[in-house]
Amino acid sequence: MRVVARWNTGGMLRDLDLPAIFDGPSGQITLRRATSDDLDRLMALLADDAVSASRGDVAAPDDRLAYLDALEQIIGDASNDLLVATDPAGRLVGTFQLTRIPGMARRGATRLQVEAVRVRSESRSSGIGTAMMTWVRDVAAPALGSPLVQLTSDAARADAHRFYERLGFHGSHVGFKYRVPDEASRGE
Amino acid sequence: MRVVARWNTGGMLRDLDLPAIFDGPSGQITLRRATSDDLDRLMALLADDAVSASRGDVAAPDDRLAYLDALEQIIGDASNDLLVATDPAGRLVGTFQLTRIPGMARRGATRLQVEAVRVRSESRSSGIGTAMMTWVRDVAAPALGSPLVQLTSDAARADAHRFYERLGFHGSHVGFKYRVPDEASRGE
Repeated sequence: MRVVARWNTGGMLRDLDLPAIFDGPSGQITLRRATSDDLDRLMALLADDAVSASRGDVAAPDDRLAYLDALEQIIGDASNDLLVATDPAGRLVGTFQLTRIPGMARRGATRLQVEAVRVRSESRSSGIGTAMMTWVRDVAAPALGSPLVQLTSDAARADAHRFYERLGFHGSHVGFKYRVPDEASRGE
Repeated sequence: MRVVARWNTGGMLRDLDLPAIFDGPSGQITLRRATSDDLDRLMALLADDAVSASRGDVAAPDDRLAYLDALEQIIGDASNDLLVATDPAGRLVGTFQLTRIPGMARRGATRLQVEAVRVRSESRSSGIGTAMMTWVRDVAAPALGSPLVQLTSDAARADAHRFYERLGFHGSHVGFKYRVPDEASRGE
């Protein structure tokens, strides 16, 4: 007989009940899993953000295969999923990535990590981001048996920090990044 | 024919060349994958840290099954691995978790995330942490085709922040955490 541990009784990302429907500013917003058909719209959404664009996300045609490969890897990985929010006209208005991370710390707590949260520029401050993150916090994390939701946000995104604080997140950590030199990452 | 994308040519965590050997302060340090036989020593190592202990990691016997479940999940997940460093006497002197995260942002960049870096208190400042993180930065990330290594560190760990900055990490982000209320995570 296997004794079930306290927190680790949750399901996997593929078990999340999707699509989910929210009331948006101009009709219902549908939150669903991304497919490879969303590729071009996802590239456009990433480029529609000054911080992302400054890091090279400019929806360049030459980068399309790299984005497609990444999207297929995310979709094919049981520990990752990419979600998209669409408006009643079918337009993609938001996206974020979820990563389920089992962990030893905090008494064997599974973490639900959120990456790459983006809302289309003309739809910002309309409640879409709040609806998406409230779903992560109140629906996805409990369903995954995860006592902790975590994300990092660029220090330049002061508005985003206030947004997360309003949702009950605490900026208790410093997020460090190391860029691997190009030659090393290509194995040269 | 499939065109290979720029960054995503790397292997998976299981392909990393381990064990790796470093020169430590009192002989060779071996970096290897954790097994379930390491459970009690890993629990002791987590408890040997004031910040972890304040979050409930006190190596309590009642938590052993939760830690075992977490360890088995990490070992069984292709996107995660737990590493341990042992000294010549076989003592566990360090540990960290790696998570490989495919992603759309930064032109479809795979991220290598480091979690739960710990060095035994009596072995700190002896070069073990530097050896472990240098291996992550210079060996693991290139092997995985990951142009970015990322981690978060509690704002209270000022010494750790200087350590990561010396290794070329930039504290460019704020790390947010949300604690899911107990009732919600238990699905009550």
